[in-house]
Amino acid sequence: MMDLLTMNQLSNEEILTILEDAGAYKDGRGWTSNSMLFVTNLFFEPSTRTRFSFEVAEKKLGLHVLNFSAEHSSVQKGETLYDTVKTLESIGANAVVIRHEQDRYFEELEGKVGIPIINAGDGCGNHPTQSLLDLLTIKEEFGYFKGLTVSIHGDIRHSRVARSNAEVLSRLGARVLFAGPDEWQDASNPYGEYAPVDEAITSSDVVMLLRIQHERHHDQSNSVQNYLQQFGLTKQRESMMKQHAIIMHPAPVNRDVEIASELIECDRSRIFKQMENGVYVRMAVLKRALQKNEQKLEEKNHVICS
Amino acid sequence: MMDLLTMNQLSNEEILTILEDAGAYKDGRGWTSNSMLFVTNLFFEPSTRTRFSFEVAEKKLGLHVLNFSAEHSSVQKGETLYDTVKTLESIGANAVVIRHEQDRYFEELEGKVGIPIINAGDGCGNHPTQSLLDLLTIKEEFGYFKGLTVSIHGDIRHSRVARSNAEVLSRLGARVLFAGPDEWQDASNPYGEYAPVDEAITSSDVVMLLRIQHERHHDQSNSVQNYLQQFGLTKQRESMMKQHAIIMHPAPVNRDVEIASELIECDRSRIFKQMENGVYVRMAVLKRALQKNEQKLEEKNHVICS
Amino acid sequence: MMDLLTMNQLSNEEILTILEDAGAYKDGRGWTSNSMLFVTNLFFEPSTRTRFSFEVAEKKLGLHVLNFSAEHSSVQKGETLYDTVKTLESIGANAVVIRHEQDRYFEELEGKVGIPIINAGDGCGNHPTQSLLDLLTIKEEFGYFKGLTVSIHGDIRHSRVARSNAEVLSRLGARVLFAGPDEWQDASNPYGEYAPVDEAITSSDVVMLLRIQHERHHDQSNSVQNYLQQFGLTKQRESMMKQHAIIMHPAPVNRDVEIASELIECDRSRIFKQMENGVYVRMAVLKRALQKNEQKLEEKNHVICS
Repeated sequence: MMDLLTMNQLSNEEILTILEDAGAYKDGRGWTSNSMLFVTNLFFEPSTRTRFSFEVAEKKLGLHVLNFSAEHSSVQKGETLYDTVKTLESIGANAVVIRHEQDRYFEELEGKVGIPIINAGDGCGNHPTQSLLDLLTIKEEFGYFKGLTVSIHGDIRHSRVARSNAEVLSRLGARVLFAGPDEWQDASNPYGEYAPVDEAITSSDVVMLLRIQHERHHDQSNSVQNYLQQFGLTKQRESMMKQHAIIMHPAPVNRDVEIASELIECDRSRIFKQMENGVYVRMAVLKRALQKNEQKLEEKNHVICS
Repeated sequence: MMDLLTMNQLSNEEILTILEDAGAYKDGRGWTSNSMLFVTNLFFEPSTRTRFSFEVAEKKLGLHVLNFSAEHSSVQKGETLYDTVKTLESIGANAVVIRHEQDRYFEELEGKVGIPIINAGDGCGNHPTQSLLDLLTIKEEFGYFKGLTVSIHGDIRHSRVARSNAEVLSRLGARVLFAGPDEWQDASNPYGEYAPVDEAITSSDVVMLLRIQHERHHDQSNSVQNYLQQFGLTKQRESMMKQHAIIMHPAPVNRDVEIASELIECDRSRIFKQMENGVYVRMAVLKRALQKNEQKLEEKNHVICS
Repeated sequence: MMDLLTMNQLSNEEILTILEDAGAYKDGRGWTSNSMLFVTNLFFEPSTRTRFSFEVAEKKLGLHVLNFSAEHSSVQKGETLYDTVKTLESIGANAVVIRHEQDRYFEELEGKVGIPIINAGDGCGNHPTQSLLDLLTIKEEFGYFKGLTVSIHGDIRHSRVARSNAEVLSRLGARVLFAGPDEWQDASNPYGEYAPVDEAITSSDVVMLLRIQHERHHDQSNSVQNYLQQFGLTKQRESMMKQHAIIMHPAPVNRDVEIASELIECDRSRIFKQMENGVYVRMAVLKRALQKNEQKLEEKNHVICS
């Protein structure tokens, strides 16, 4: 089953294949569906860019899209996630994309349902298509990962992206630095070294900012007020960056918190390019999940028709 | 107008035609639309399987789908159901699928709007496509209805399905038994006999469990706790079933209330098959509603073009 | 950029071109898309007819539709409208249709985003596609605007439609009258004269009723109770209308407030025809926004492929 649950489960070869497929889609090439395949987007948390990015990717592949939002569903009646997914499978879904607030929600499903599951974010855990789009953006910029220095700034502990990006970037040969408030350090994350923010900025090829998740830190509004000056990317810090270095952020951006508002669309910023790339990596991930499935469907139909 | 409001209004012949059409769709045959036909799904209550089942059915037929959920609409501004449906008709909907919490909401519409209405559930009243998918599942299993014993277990009084299934199964020649708590008996339903639960189980070809609708019975949590042992389908009761007998449930299932969790996907269970069949009966019902409509549209277009 | 933000910004020639295109679509002719173009419907307020009317228009043009409702989105996380629209652009939207409760929300976007914006209603301000469908309905009826008398009845001050319709109708040569409660007069609107309601009714070719927006006037339930008798279109007032005069209302109608319930579908009423026409003017507006865009896309693809 061609699930995509975590970056961990992907080998370096698989990652590079996905990035290559994504690049092909960006050039207007690659598999699209000829059958009637259905994908369900099952979002239990609000999302703009991830949900629409998947929907655009699905439609560009010729897939039929079913959009599910938890509040209009039988989840209201206490239905389990497993039963919801089995239901969607019975009704005809060929794959399901899930965002859920619970860490590792997918363990309840893995190996038990007959359709691929694509993780669009679980709690503070994983967000593999975000990592993949970050990788595509870096690869487009530099052509390689080996020897690059990537600094990740912000709430390392609660970020879906920090851990999995650090792991995979290390594995692909990059050096990872972490910077941010002490209370957001994550001792359980062995894939980078902590550095003072200015040092991280000046030595990086990629400055990767994390989002301050106000919705998860209701109590820390004080610290947020000074965040930009203490830990964020100000105009002054940006001027210290290497000449060719780029700025990344998973968005939505808190303007003038993680980054000075005027830098969001500056020359070094790849923030909106990341979003664009998100569509192409999701196409590649869906292709990986569905292409074989379609071949089986076609063989089955062939038997019926002949 | 090829509405589908209640099972009552369908003759035995019409029912068998729908089941035959559904079977054809399951085999990959049958009418699909060549025009640009729009169907609106108007859901005033949460639903997973019914709504998605209709949406998949509609898309498999080549129809264009408009999904309406009450909370984003002018129903918020106090618009009547009649005005909402007339609006959708004016905008170009060729049929409307409605789920509404009010019993017989469709009386406000019947004969007054120019597009077919398909009832996807009204209050505690009717849910004809659920009945039809139950019939298709039974017919696939046994090939006939005459002489079968079907027992319906649970909240007979408040179930959309109990009354209409009992009526139509009787009419098609099956014997219907009811079982469940005394307080949920329904003296106004003449289409079956009450039997003790064990007796109903052992004598049935089809054990049809109803959902305990917590959302309609807020006060009865005590009785629900012992429900499985007293009235539900336990492993022990399942072992008393006839060898060829099957288990059905409209879902969503309350695990370990109506049925022991481990039985939901057992060999006799047709629960997920019912969901699959739901798509095909809905295709057949939509075909019935729209096929003539399309012919008229094509004739009209022909006049315009020539 | 072929935005449509206000009626003001359209010249008479542009308006007539849109009406002509809308008429062509109504006859089954006109541009449809051959590429994969995406339109996002961004609705921050509840809406039935406007949202579905746009969605039907988009699908009839062969466009791919992304439906966004604010409560499931990152707007929940405090994202600005500008960032939301830039995100949608990055993800691949080729145009965006917006309804927003804030007057002139589009000033934040104008000239800053790379895709056309179509205003589907801003606060109490503008609702240009509503004005255009009103114009199409009048033009279909009379063939011209010059010399017609159009009376607009109701809450002139808070209506999206009153101001822009009055301006454009004056500009096209019609005489505009306003009628309604004194407290709803709008001294800043110079495009019509106030008249007593009975006088306005008897002298008009078009009686255009505005919706009493309960959701904006929570305090005025007393005055609403007598509204029909004092200011609304009763059977008695309808009998005083010119023989050929027509009734219009943007809907949703408050039955027996702005108009006697029995008149809503009377011979003179064009209320449901307005809704039907809404689809065609929206097709014309989308064509205006996207047709050139598609040509550019095709040229770009041509370069890539050759």
